Amino acid sequence: MMNKKFPILYGGDYNPDQWSEEIWKEDMRLFKLAHINLVTLPVFSWTMLQPSEDLYEFGWLDRILDLLAKNGIYACLATSTAAQPAWMSKKYPDMLPVDVDGRRRVHGKRVNFCPNSPVYRKFAARLAGKLAERYKNHPALLIWHIANEYGTYCYCDTCAKAFRNWVEEHYKTIEEVNRRWNLSFWNHTLTDWEEIVVPSELNDDNKWYQEIALDYDRFITDSTISCYMEEYRVIKAITPDIPITTNISGLIKHLDQFKFAKYIDIVGWDNYPSPTDDPSTVALKHDLMRGLKAGAPYLLVEQTPSQQNWQPYNKLKKPGEVRKLSYQAMAHGADAVMYFQLRGSIGGVEKFHGAVISHAGHENTRVFQECARIGAELSKIGSRFVDSRFRSKAAIIFDWDNWWSVELSSGPSKDIKYFEQINKYYKAFYDLNISVDIVRPDSDLSQYKIVTAPLLYMVKPGVDQNLNAFVSGGGTLISSFFSGIVDENDLVTTGGYPGKLRELFGIWVEEWDALLPEEKNSMVISEKGKYLADRYDCGLLCDLIHPETAKSLACYGADFYQGTSCLTVNQYGKGLAYYIGTDPDKAFLSDFVKGVCTEKCVTPPMITPGGVEVTRRYAQDGRAFTFLINHNMEKTDVCLDKDYRDMLTDSVISGYFTLPQMGAAVLENL
Amino acid sequence: MMNKKFPILYGGDYNPDQWSEEIWKEDMRLFKLAHINLVTLPVFSWTMLQPSEDLYEFGWLDRILDLLAKNGIYACLATSTAAQPAWMSKKYPDMLPVDVDGRRRVHGKRVNFCPNSPVYRKFAARLAGKLAERYKNHPALLIWHIANEYGTYCYCDTCAKAFRNWVEEHYKTIEEVNRRWNLSFWNHTLTDWEEIVVPSELNDDNKWYQEIALDYDRFITDSTISCYMEEYRVIKAITPDIPITTNISGLIKHLDQFKFAKYIDIVGWDNYPSPTDDPSTVALKHDLMRGLKAGAPYLLVEQTPSQQNWQPYNKLKKPGEVRKLSYQAMAHGADAVMYFQLRGSIGGVEKFHGAVISHAGHENTRVFQECARIGAELSKIGSRFVDSRFRSKAAIIFDWDNWWSVELSSGPSKDIKYFEQINKYYKAFYDLNISVDIVRPDSDLSQYKIVTAPLLYMVKPGVDQNLNAFVSGGGTLISSFFSGIVDENDLVTTGGYPGKLRELFGIWVEEWDALLPEEKNSMVISEKGKYLADRYDCGLLCDLIHPETAKSLACYGADFYQGTSCLTVNQYGKGLAYYIGTDPDKAFLSDFVKGVCTEKCVTPPMITPGGVEVTRRYAQDGRAFTFLINHNMEKTDVCLDKDYRDMLTDSVISGYFTLPQMGAAVLENL
Amino acid sequence: MMNKKFPILYGGDYNPDQWSEEIWKEDMRLFKLAHINLVTLPVFSWTMLQPSEDLYEFGWLDRILDLLAKNGIYACLATSTAAQPAWMSKKYPDMLPVDVDGRRRVHGKRVNFCPNSPVYRKFAARLAGKLAERYKNHPALLIWHIANEYGTYCYCDTCAKAFRNWVEEHYKTIEEVNRRWNLSFWNHTLTDWEEIVVPSELNDDNKWYQEIALDYDRFITDSTISCYMEEYRVIKAITPDIPITTNISGLIKHLDQFKFAKYIDIVGWDNYPSPTDDPSTVALKHDLMRGLKAGAPYLLVEQTPSQQNWQPYNKLKKPGEVRKLSYQAMAHGADAVMYFQLRGSIGGVEKFHGAVISHAGHENTRVFQECARIGAELSKIGSRFVDSRFRSKAAIIFDWDNWWSVELSSGPSKDIKYFEQINKYYKAFYDLNISVDIVRPDSDLSQYKIVTAPLLYMVKPGVDQNLNAFVSGGGTLISSFFSGIVDENDLVTTGGYPGKLRELFGIWVEEWDALLPEEKNSMVISEKGKYLADRYDCGLLCDLIHPETAKSLACYGADFYQGTSCLTVNQYGKGLAYYIGTDPDKAFLSDFVKGVCTEKCVTPPMITPGGVEVTRRYAQDGRAFTFLINHNMEKTDVCLDKDYRDMLTDSVISGYFTLPQMGAAVLENL
Repeated sequence: MMNKKFPILYGGDYNPDQWSEEIWKEDMRLFKLAHINLVTLPVFSWTMLQPSEDLYEFGWLDRILDLLAKNGIYACLATSTAAQPAWMSKKYPDMLPVDVDGRRRVHGKRVNFCPNSPVYRKFAARLAGKLAERYKNHPALLIWHIANEYGTYCYCDTCAKAFRNWVEEHYKTIEEVNRRWNLSFWNHTLTDWEEIVVPSELNDDNKWYQEIALDYDRFITDSTISCYMEEYRVIKAITPDIPITTNISGLIKHLDQFKFAKYIDIVGWDNYPSPTDDPSTVALKHDLMRGLKAGAPYLLVEQTPSQQNWQPYNKLKKPGEVRKLSYQAMAHGADAVMYFQLRGSIGGVEKFHGAVISHAGHENTRVFQECARIGAELSKIGSRFVDSRFRSKAAIIFDWDNWWSVELSSGPSKDIKYFEQINKYYKAFYDLNISVDIVRPDSDLSQYKIVTAPLLYMVKPGVDQNLNAFVSGGGTLISSFFSGIVDENDLVTTGGYPGKLRELFGIWVEEWDALLPEEKNSMVISEKGKYLADRYDCGLLCDLIHPETAKSLACYGADFYQGTSCLTVNQYGKGLAYYIGTDPDKAFLSDFVKGVCTEKCVTPPMITPGGVEVTRRYAQDGRAFTFLINHNMEKTDVCLDKDYRDMLTDSVISGYFTLPQMGAAVLENL
Repeated sequence: MMNKKFPILYGGDYNPDQWSEEIWKEDMRLFKLAHINLVTLPVFSWTMLQPSEDLYEFGWLDRILDLLAKNGIYACLATSTAAQPAWMSKKYPDMLPVDVDGRRRVHGKRVNFCPNSPVYRKFAARLAGKLAERYKNHPALLIWHIANEYGTYCYCDTCAKAFRNWVEEHYKTIEEVNRRWNLSFWNHTLTDWEEIVVPSELNDDNKWYQEIALDYDRFITDSTISCYMEEYRVIKAITPDIPITTNISGLIKHLDQFKFAKYIDIVGWDNYPSPTDDPSTVALKHDLMRGLKAGAPYLLVEQTPSQQNWQPYNKLKKPGEVRKLSYQAMAHGADAVMYFQLRGSIGGVEKFHGAVISHAGHENTRVFQECARIGAELSKIGSRFVDSRFRSKAAIIFDWDNWWSVELSSGPSKDIKYFEQINKYYKAFYDLNISVDIVRPDSDLSQYKIVTAPLLYMVKPGVDQNLNAFVSGGGTLISSFFSGIVDENDLVTTGGYPGKLRELFGIWVEEWDALLPEEKNSMVISEKGKYLADRYDCGLLCDLIHPETAKSLACYGADFYQGTSCLTVNQYGKGLAYYIGTDPDKAFLSDFVKGVCTEKCVTPPMITPGGVEVTRRYAQDGRAFTFLINHNMEKTDVCLDKDYRDMLTDSVISGYFTLPQMGAAVLENL
Repeated sequence: MMNKKFPILYGGDYNPDQWSEEIWKEDMRLFKLAHINLVTLPVFSWTMLQPSEDLYEFGWLDRILDLLAKNGIYACLATSTAAQPAWMSKKYPDMLPVDVDGRRRVHGKRVNFCPNSPVYRKFAARLAGKLAERYKNHPALLIWHIANEYGTYCYCDTCAKAFRNWVEEHYKTIEEVNRRWNLSFWNHTLTDWEEIVVPSELNDDNKWYQEIALDYDRFITDSTISCYMEEYRVIKAITPDIPITTNISGLIKHLDQFKFAKYIDIVGWDNYPSPTDDPSTVALKHDLMRGLKAGAPYLLVEQTPSQQNWQPYNKLKKPGEVRKLSYQAMAHGADAVMYFQLRGSIGGVEKFHGAVISHAGHENTRVFQECARIGAELSKIGSRFVDSRFRSKAAIIFDWDNWWSVELSSGPSKDIKYFEQINKYYKAFYDLNISVDIVRPDSDLSQYKIVTAPLLYMVKPGVDQNLNAFVSGGGTLISSFFSGIVDENDLVTTGGYPGKLRELFGIWVEEWDALLPEEKNSMVISEKGKYLADRYDCGLLCDLIHPETAKSLACYGADFYQGTSCLTVNQYGKGLAYYIGTDPDKAFLSDFVKGVCTEKCVTPPMITPGGVEVTRRYAQDGRAFTFLINHNMEKTDVCLDKDYRDMLTDSVISGYFTLPQMGAAVLENL
């Protein structure tokens, strides 16, 4: 966590403005019953804080903060700027966003402002400043929380103007824009800055001009950061020692979080898995969050203590499920477990969202009791592993620019999805309990033995050198189909795919075939080693590879390109570069990753039965904390590799250790 | 029917302005061949009646009305206001509605006006007045028909202003609005009336702020009634003795018809079942129409004599099918059987809609002959059972506010559909031929032995007392999952579900699980009695019930809540309150309803074989008319419980009586 | 081809403005390697030709045209008007179209202008004139290519005004418009021209007023032709001897191409089959293109040499597949085989579209080699069969007005699709290798023995006489369900279906049943002859036919209309008129068409094994060229009916001739 004085944080969002002060008092009792030590507020109370342009009212906030302090509970103090007052939208309608269909939105919902609106920015910064001044010395103040789940794409005239400025700043001349966006295609050639039009449904019918749309994605990230920084700067100037966060929505595609994270003191995110998500998907997102600031612990800012309300079918969380998800978060680097929400609203869009304190209003519910148990456990053991870190030997490269561009692409297949591909490769490591860091294409890779860069469609400047250096220094690199295609502007690198990675992989991809969803091909393994089987299924896309310096390890089993290589390895300096030219089945990835990890001696913390996740965090002083998470719906015995201290029971354990269904444990090295 | 002089009405919509006067004459011959006694006109002829702002022309209408009178045919005189003239839309474009996407509509279609438009209202009332003045003493005039299938949701500035006034009238202060809509959620707090924004796609992306959207539904009903009343008042003042109707579209959700029906002299509706609708669905809608004015007979204003044109696949009605549907209508309380349309248009959107007189233009068609047969039968027997009523001992509570709010809800499951739930319970009674009245939550329930209130999510003020009184007086109440949740503003009643119904049902519902569509659970019956089997399937939603004073009759068979109660009964005063905490399969409902009806001695008019519907209407003088409808596609023998007079053959029948496939009969008690 | 000096044309689209002049030179080398003799350019370079309103720059175009001429390659000189400059859209925003949702589009995409915009038309014509003046004597100039894939439907005020004028020109009086559009329906009655509103999503919710929408389709065709003619006239005045084309998009429904083709010197089209298209679908479209100018050869202006990029899944073309598609084009009358594109763009929406010169940039690719092989073959044999024609004895009637109106229809079934029906009947002939001409309803039919007019819903003035004359003169006519229903304004012909065709077919269709997708009926054959089986499946729509003078050949096998006729033949004069009253399965159509062709002695050029297509073109001097196309994925032996000269090997062949998989050959009569 941000500094050593922090305990594991446990709590969540609370809306005192929806409740009477009598209920506040009752809630203090309930919070303490549940060992809650952090309350986030007020996330959505701008109007109550500023009922009109020149009037601010903080009395009620004073009272609730004082009450928290009196009860020994910290506040994650929100700036309340995620939803501007109705009076403000009415008086300054230009602050409302214009949507991708060209429609000016009207007041409502939330996060419903143009991120480039000068009026919004001015009022948001002013409110943040007033809060900081007023509460800078308040004993409850632990963390600042700016706005909420940023991510609005706006297409208004303000944004269009700002976008033109952004383009001019980046490319300097119209000629350079024409070149970087290849605008002679379809006569999109510009002769003046004013001719730049934002990409929307009004000009492109879902077949957007990718080079422009990609830069619009970048521009929106930059605009959002700039909007956020208006509040950040004013708060930081007043309370330089209080860390600042903002929570990332689960829909993480909208904004480049690697870029955003540079401006955030502590990363925070909201974890709302769908009932059908595999545990590995949740784990991947946690690892991505940990990766945003290069391994620093982060906050799980929101999860639901039971059902959600905005999914099509909102299943209950079963007994133990919230606890399991909470320990999984900490197992991947979270130092906070927080809920949306502490008490359930009686009206509004989310009234049927789970809450620690349900509509029944008391502690005698299954959900409250489970939350209280987690709180009790964390108050006992959390401070011991807080701020501990990972020591991963494997990494996966992740890149928002690549995500955006490969999914903006028109062709070769609409089913090429970046996150899905990352997830497939991640799962192969996850199933082996191999710890993986999620890194940027330009991250320092020297600490890793294995780096995987699936679907690395875009190779930005320097990335080829970074990968070359990693491999030539002895690392093992794995990449996959449709990689090395374009530069940072989504312009194809000519001369033969995979472009700037061609020498590294030692191959030329002459062309590719996109398969229909019902079509399959197969990979016939020619160099099996001891991990690979004879044949695997594959589909989606088939790169037709000419190995140059690489060695072919497998060929396609069907179609006119039967016998053409689909899997290669290239010795490059001291390392190896694998290229998987198609989308293999899970069995291949499992076997292949197992083989590569074995070759490189990359091992899990402990061997566990299927369904039991294990991770390890290390304190700076060398103490090691092993997290065991049982995803099985039955109790499972783990054969411990040595003796440990079971932190929850405070006893030394050895031999077989039994985890109940959906159980979790934290073991400390002796 | 409205008064005793009325015969059974038989006829339909006719558009004289689409045909030459020669064809009018031929049509009179054909109408009489078919025993048609009522013609609705002119529904869509405003421009021909008022070709410009200051010019009215009634000559052609005089001629057709005179022709009808001369031929002994009544007119259902339409005010022709459902589609304003093109010149009017052009001159007063503000009368065109703004749609939910914020787009001002352009002239076209029909029912394409803002219900709050002062200009539309002024012109509509003026035309209605002129028609009333001109035809008040016309011998053909039998009924007034205002406009057509109201139901436009408009989002224009006029409506926004009217909505703000509506809100102010209802809640008086801004503070009260903030409270009633729980607007502190997501900082929707208002500081001024002018800040109220109508809920539309422009602010809410399908996740509407339910409390506001619910009141907008109510407001649109009120606006539409107010629009309709502009015509009603002027007509009533001129022809106080002529009853006034307007036809309800099959899409009955849009407007609260219970509320609307108060302002209508005779209820009328348009019955367009889809080819896959079960007969019970049609029956339910008929019973709902009968319920709108507490059992008064109503008009079947439109049905098609054969195929429709606006369904995806427009199947023919088979021989006997229209006759069967016509008798089913009367079996449920209709005193009129009318068609859209008497002669088929040659152009326009509905030219392939069925008509009594098809494009062939003569009587020698299968469809005409069937219509003529029905007409002949009705002219023979209809006047005998006209104005007869039902004596139901069972009722189902139906409520538009509940419909709107439960389907506006975000969570727990998108598949919770009110009408579908009502239909499932209704079908259990229907299959037993138990007559059911559809009543309001605040209706007087004293005449009933069994009242069913499925999915009674919203409990409006007084409803809990009404139900308590019914049960404590000895009645049996049946309700189901997700009931008792909110008040009249869609705000959750805290303290434990089912809120204000908790004492009545003697249970506490701690939480609920929403099942995925492919998931099932089961109800394991612990108290079988003689009607229930050991186990039934259930799904959709599972309330987890703690019986308090209630007795558990069944528990869930699976998941972590296996063994938790899912069906309870509570003795409350002299009666019983059953709570079905999940969505059971049809077999359960069938068995359960059979058991309850037997216990309460609620019986059908006669026992019939499967597929043979039977209902009974009673004249004020005590005569009883038993309707038999054979929905089977083969002839079916009914064993009569006693001797009857078969009204169509005018003969006394006894023992086995054979209904042909899709046959219908009306039997009079001897 | 247009005149005898033309060779077979081989080449495609080239975008010199996307490449350096060094690459131009390299491309000349590659073009010649591939035997390319025609390059289309510059299709999208308006801004480079006219960087501002008063500045034109042709220097770069001079240089590339000179380079082409120097290398002996012709230019298909494009006017570059399909995408206006950004500066022009910005300065004259009214030239941007308003879409069917009423939204003014913004600059972007392509073909993104209002076809009625006076500004667009002025600038387009001015540019075309400048190009014509400058290059009228350029040695490279062979053909003009105006704009690109016209087809924009615009709904702006300019169009609305033009539409009102169009209506007034066609119908002269408001009364006539009211009559022709049957506007009394739903009170759409007009009193003034200004009241006419264009049909869009703003007034009709997908249930458009068909009569108006049909005329809007016609109006857009007329507007587009008029827009095109602005360029045509100015070019023709300057270079009267150079033929002018414009390419028809594969989405051919938008514009009435029969009407458009009158204004084009040579028809050209873009062939982009989906991977799942049957070869007969491609063949049908080719025959339609040949039919546009009554049998004149046409240009295949675009096809991809390998994958596309804008389909959901963009499969590679397999080895031989592009060659097969190229020969299939010529087998149906094309005298040009051209590609989009010669060199693949590095950026923009279509960067992953196939190209002769791929991103690798050299000739050593599978795709380039196949293109070069085709080029070599065509340069050897193409000039010999250029401008040869067909001698078909069978025709299919095709009509855009019918297409539009039958698919605008509301009812009887949403699955009635005109092109699909045409395709089913076409395939029955195609599978027999019977050459079919696609003709207009008013074409001279005297050369044909068999004319098929499936789903001839609309019978325009004179069409009934044309068909009557054809049959009474001895021809055999085949039509199908839902025919003869409406006149040229989509108004029903009353008195009994099939209206004006009733006497010809000798039947009365009293009504029809629309079947659900999962429903089937059957045709029970009563008069089998030697070609028909006992029974076939049918579905979609079932006309209930009363034979009058016709003889019934089959009856329905199920439903209440079991035993009702579904297939009839009528002797009319010297000929026969068959009416197929339902949608039969493929087996029926295959057997039925085989029988009719045998009766009428309409035979294929040669009997071939399944999957081997054969067509024959005739030179004016009587030489005959037989095209053999093997669609099988294995080599197939064809037993030649006599000796031929194999043009590719220049050898005489006889007996069995082997075609490799996807192979093609051209045989000349000896």
